[in-house]
Order: sequence, then structure tokens, then C-alpha cells
Amino acid sequence: MAKNNKNISMAVIRRLPKYHRYLKELLDKEVYRISSKELSVMMGFTASQIRQDLNNFGGFGQQGYGYNVEELYREIQKILGLTITYRTVIIGSGNLGQAIANYTNFQKYGFKLLALFDTNPKLIGMKIRDVPVFDIDELQEFIEQKQVDIGIICTPKEFAQDIANKLVKTGVSAIWNFAPVDLKVPEHVIIENVHLSDSLFILSYLLSNQENF
Amino acid sequence: MAKNNKNISMAVIRRLPKYHRYLKELLDKEVYRISSKELSVMMGFTASQIRQDLNNFGGFGQQGYGYNVEELYREIQKILGLTITYRTVIIGSGNLGQAIANYTNFQKYGFKLLALFDTNPKLIGMKIRDVPVFDIDELQEFIEQKQVDIGIICTPKEFAQDIANKLVKTGVSAIWNFAPVDLKVPEHVIIENVHLSDSLFILSYLLSNQENF
Repeated sequence: MAKNNKNISMAVIRRLPKYHRYLKELLDKEVYRISSKELSVMMGFTASQIRQDLNNFGGFGQQGYGYNVEELYREIQKILGLTITYRTVIIGSGNLGQAIANYTNFQKYGFKLLALFDTNPKLIGMKIRDVPVFDIDELQEFIEQKQVDIGIICTPKEFAQDIANKLVKTGVSAIWNFAPVDLKVPEHVIIENVHLSDSLFILSYLLSNQENF
Repeated sequence: MAKNNKNISMAVIRRLPKYHRYLKELLDKEVYRISSKELSVMMGFTASQIRQDLNNFGGFGQQGYGYNVEELYREIQKILGLTITYRTVIIGSGNLGQAIANYTNFQKYGFKLLALFDTNPKLIGMKIRDVPVFDIDELQEFIEQKQVDIGIICTPKEFAQDIANKLVKTGVSAIWNFAPVDLKVPEHVIIENVHLSDSLFILSYLLSNQENF
């Protein structure tokens, strides 16, 4: 039912996770139909923006009926690739790595966590949600043997590029990077950075420009 | 030297943390001058985009000289409000809360962490980097007494809105939210959400649309 994904602009794609989140909430509340106007109030987008965005995936909205929540949700899942299973590992098993490992939601959307890695002897041998923590020296062999798709980097900044190089060398397709540095990888490797400080600095901007601060 | 911040578009503002990160890296390498072209190669923005962006803060670029890295860095810090000290607390002291508490970098940029809060008796009484973990029941009194500016929510999703309501009631100015839910707060309260799954889902989209996957 979806048109070719290639025609959907990246700006629209970047809004899809938010639609996905709100549609999931509606389904959890057993709401099966919604108008663009109601979605607009919930999500803070204009109704016309919503109609334009959702128009990209074919004709889910019907006059006088609105959107079929479940159909729309499944379609967005498909577009986002959430119906596929990905094999992931976490490198860096400190608090952040463990926090990510404990997000059972990720597992539910197809991100299968196979192992964590660390250099700290106190962490090696531990299990986080039944997933073992291995010595970082075993990383490359593990990835090659288990055909890992995604490497999640939760190490301190100074080790991140070296880990990224190792991941690239072993043929990982994508890197989800939490280290506060922009990693250099070849063009065929997909990279998504989570720069927590970027978000905090925007909050700081808004706060310091507030009238009454 | 900066023009009135109010005239800078939010799109430009959202790019400033990235400039800030790269300029910091240059300073760490003792690079004090840079051309828009060199910055362009480093950051992946076009040189003309960089000139346009930086033009918003006055005349730092000089023909044949380029940008004064330190001056530009300090100006961006000022615009982002990073020369101010903010008083923060973390609610939810599990792995994620502890990971945030351990980012000493935030402290360096003026985000002073006064306390963490939790409901778990095993965590209450602990210290993370010398910062105490208190019982969540003490949250409201603490915030009022210590004039906290920013509440950082690291609780599971189901508690986040209730915590946000408490923060709003006690007069916190801003909320940095890591719970995977869009919180409802009055308009005068600033909110920045970090939706980790949004980033992961974009990575999933890119991966599933890759030619050779």
C-alpha cells in the first residue's frame, strides 16, 4: 500500500517515530479511528501538516472516517523497518550501556541484543537481562561469527573512534553512537549520533532567553 | 557583539551545539583560526551555510583570515546560555540517571547537579560522584528550598507525567525528559525531550532502505 519509500523526504521520515509513538499510545487506549484534527491537537503539528505527511503512504485517511489507527501504525512500522530483526551489540557496559541494554522496548521492535563488551574486569562475565558482557578483545571475532548488524557505542569519547574503526572493519552495517564525538566512518556505514549535550544546550538556550529568568 | 538573539531562527540555534562541539575540538588541538571552507569539510555543512549561520552573531569572519576560533566559541557559549549556572536535580537514579550524573562535562558547562531522587530503598542514601540520592518524597521540599532550575526525568515512562506535574508545581523552569513519552506541561515551562527510540528508528529506516541489506 505504501508508495516507494525513496520518494518520501527525510524531513517526513524524521517525524515518523513521533507518529509511531502517538499511534501506539492510541492503540494502547483502544482508540482505532482518529481524525487529522484530533491527531493535530495531540501531537502539536497542524492538521494540514499531518494530512500532507500521511498522504505519503497512500490513502489511509477517509473523509468522515479519519485514519485507521492500526493500519497507519503498521504501515509506519514497515516504513521504519521495524518489522525486521536486527542483531546488535553494545560496546561500553557502564551505566549508559546498561541503561540501553535494559530498554526491553528495543527488543520488542526487533533490536536483538546479543552481547555487551567492556574492558573492565569487574563487568566482564556479568549478565544484563541474561545478555553476557564479554571482553572487548573478543569483539571482532564475535561480530564476524554472529553477523551483527548494529554496533551501539556507549564508551567514553576517547575510545569511540577506535571502536568505530573496528566495527567497520568487521562489516557492521550501522553504528548508533552515544559518545559525544562525531565519528568518521566510510559512506556505506550508517551512523546515528545521540548527542545528549546538544539537547541540553538547546534547553539552556531556551531557559536563558526566557523573559523571567 | 552578538545581535539580538531573538532574531536568530530556531533552525540556526539547533545547529549551534554542533558548532560548539567542533570549535571546542579545534581549541583542544590549539587551532585558533579556521576558514569557513575548513569548517565545512569538518562538519559536513556547506561553506555558504556556515557563513550564513555565523553571520547571525556579527562579524567574526574576516577575508583572508577566517574565523577566530576562540572568539566564536565564546560567543556561541554565551548565546546558548552556557555562561550561566543552572541548578539541576535528577529524578530516577537507575542506570540512566546515574549515567547522566556521571557526565562531568555537564557540570563544566554550568549544570550543577544538587541531588538525585528515587523510590528504591537500595539507591536512597547512595552517592553518585558525591551527589546524594534522596527519597522521592523529599523532592518538592528540596526544589523549593534549593531553587532548582532544571528537573531531569530519568524514570520509567509510567511515572514521568506525575513527576513532571510535581516539578511544575514547585516552580521548576525547565524539564529535560528522557522518559519515552511526550509530557504535558504549561506553556511557561521549557521542555526538551530525548527520545532515544526516535533516533534508533531512524537508524532502522536507513538500514532497511539500504541497497544491500
